[in-house]
Amino acid sequence: MRRSRKSDGQGHVLALSGGVGGAKLAAGLAAVLAPERLTIIVNTGDDFEHLGLTICPDIDSVVYALAGLNDTARGWGVADESWHALGMLGRLGEADWFQLGDRDLAMHIARSWRMREGESLSAVTARLSAGLGIAHRVAPMSDDALRTMIETDAGWMEFQRWFVGERCAPAVRGIKFEGEAGMSPALAQALARDDLAVVVVCPSNPYLSVDPILAVAGVRAALGDVNVPRVAVSPLIGGKAVKGPLGALLADLAGGADNAAIARHYGGLIDHLVIDRSDDAGAEGLHAQGLCVTVTDTLMRGVEDQARLARAVLGAVKVEADL
Amino acid sequence: MRRSRKSDGQGHVLALSGGVGGAKLAAGLAAVLAPERLTIIVNTGDDFEHLGLTICPDIDSVVYALAGLNDTARGWGVADESWHALGMLGRLGEADWFQLGDRDLAMHIARSWRMREGESLSAVTARLSAGLGIAHRVAPMSDDALRTMIETDAGWMEFQRWFVGERCAPAVRGIKFEGEAGMSPALAQALARDDLAVVVVCPSNPYLSVDPILAVAGVRAALGDVNVPRVAVSPLIGGKAVKGPLGALLADLAGGADNAAIARHYGGLIDHLVIDRSDDAGAEGLHAQGLCVTVTDTLMRGVEDQARLARAVLGAVKVEADL
Repeated sequence: MRRSRKSDGQGHVLALSGGVGGAKLAAGLAAVLAPERLTIIVNTGDDFEHLGLTICPDIDSVVYALAGLNDTARGWGVADESWHALGMLGRLGEADWFQLGDRDLAMHIARSWRMREGESLSAVTARLSAGLGIAHRVAPMSDDALRTMIETDAGWMEFQRWFVGERCAPAVRGIKFEGEAGMSPALAQALARDDLAVVVVCPSNPYLSVDPILAVAGVRAALGDVNVPRVAVSPLIGGKAVKGPLGALLADLAGGADNAAIARHYGGLIDHLVIDRSDDAGAEGLHAQGLCVTVTDTLMRGVEDQARLARAVLGAVKVEADL
Repeated sequence: MRRSRKSDGQGHVLALSGGVGGAKLAAGLAAVLAPERLTIIVNTGDDFEHLGLTICPDIDSVVYALAGLNDTARGWGVADESWHALGMLGRLGEADWFQLGDRDLAMHIARSWRMREGESLSAVTARLSAGLGIAHRVAPMSDDALRTMIETDAGWMEFQRWFVGERCAPAVRGIKFEGEAGMSPALAQALARDDLAVVVVCPSNPYLSVDPILAVAGVRAALGDVNVPRVAVSPLIGGKAVKGPLGALLADLAGGADNAAIARHYGGLIDHLVIDRSDDAGAEGLHAQGLCVTVTDTLMRGVEDQARLARAVLGAVKVEADL
């Protein structure tokens, strides 16, 4: 039963995001929507404990993008970063396979300390966001641990070990999410809002960034129940992932990298797919899968592209931007 | 009952050290003694927990000095240090009153993580020293917490809060050491060695750096029992402390800043005081206190001064240097 909503085009936007690509659209949405109209829910399946620090790569990517601190050339972490602590950790014989920049490290130190003092990940994320001047609400999908595990021919390994430690080289045989996670307060509240206008699935990896959010208890059911457009922005451009392991994953797990595979993967959970102009030829097939399709330029080279794509996504489902 | 020792001038040297000044002489001793002939025991009364990290300022000062990484101009921390993590911590609204350099932070992260994993402070200190290429044994006075507390007119406060947070401004009414601490294995072993040749009290603050070591259970008794010279190097030069709050402390607690006050403070625990040439006039009074006195240049401007003073200290008690 999908509930009816008060949707006058001025309603609330719930964005589900992973790291880099998702973070760009999240920043675009934040650029065109007033703070009270946007909730950004971020994947925490990639989170891990490293050297005693709680590291949340996707939350940090979103926070850095919204704060304008993200390194756009490297594609992750903080701009103008330095690596002196990491160099010293290496000299001390500690693990240095995970790139920890000096500024980035401050996020991990503050988060780890506050959580050890008893704060939830939601509370810490709100604290860190506010510290960096972010007015919009950024929250984890859950305050519970749900850890993405990757199956390769060498067995199961933690996501970061595969992603960073092994540079995504081992072919992926399967993915699972370990743990029992309930929705964070921000996610539960956004899904229950009377004025919810749209759910935006950002252009993040469906397997690694969106599936963990869908694996949080109650999320699939709630997304099936919301009576508002659910629009995903495809992470593919010209049939290829802009960055990261998505291309190989689609080949390994879906038999091919195209938007039809993305659409099949999301099944009945989305109504609308925004695809890049270069993948226009596949639009017919998507219509046949029962989806509304919007074709636009989805590559986000800078903040202007981010805002433009955010407007296009909102416009596609008749939701007005504020700015 | 002071035990007899096999002392042929080639025996073992036990150095007790605080931070900066002590670290310089510790580095000098390491420069002139083979690794197997030296144990450096470091004050941990200043240690504290900060942002979830275990910080051991005096151990780090000694380790940096021995590794040649210490900033000689600033007088503490790592040379060529950067402060990006601290700047970000400040932006995040976290405490930034304690100066944490980026390289220095790696020490605290590694130490905190290893200790949380169950390693003792002794084991971690050995690990970090080895990582930085230090062949000599550097160890904490204790693996237990013994925290220096400072009494001011505003009440008791933790040492670092007074030292760094308040820049030593509040006059000191009293000092106490909270906790029950036993000797670290390295300290107990060094005191029990048959070939112990000398105990060197480095030119550190008697109240803040040496007294905590003396407050470790059994240390005063063991120092009273060793049948070897116990030689302290005065931290005063020209009746003034080279650095830090010693001058004010002596005025507040001992009624005056001179070597007679230092000697009285150590009471019967030392036999020999090494003083600076500029304080020569006080030597007679020290003899009257029953002490052997060596007058030399005690200011250590660089590694050559450190080695020279180390040789002078060892020579004063007929212990041979290796190098």
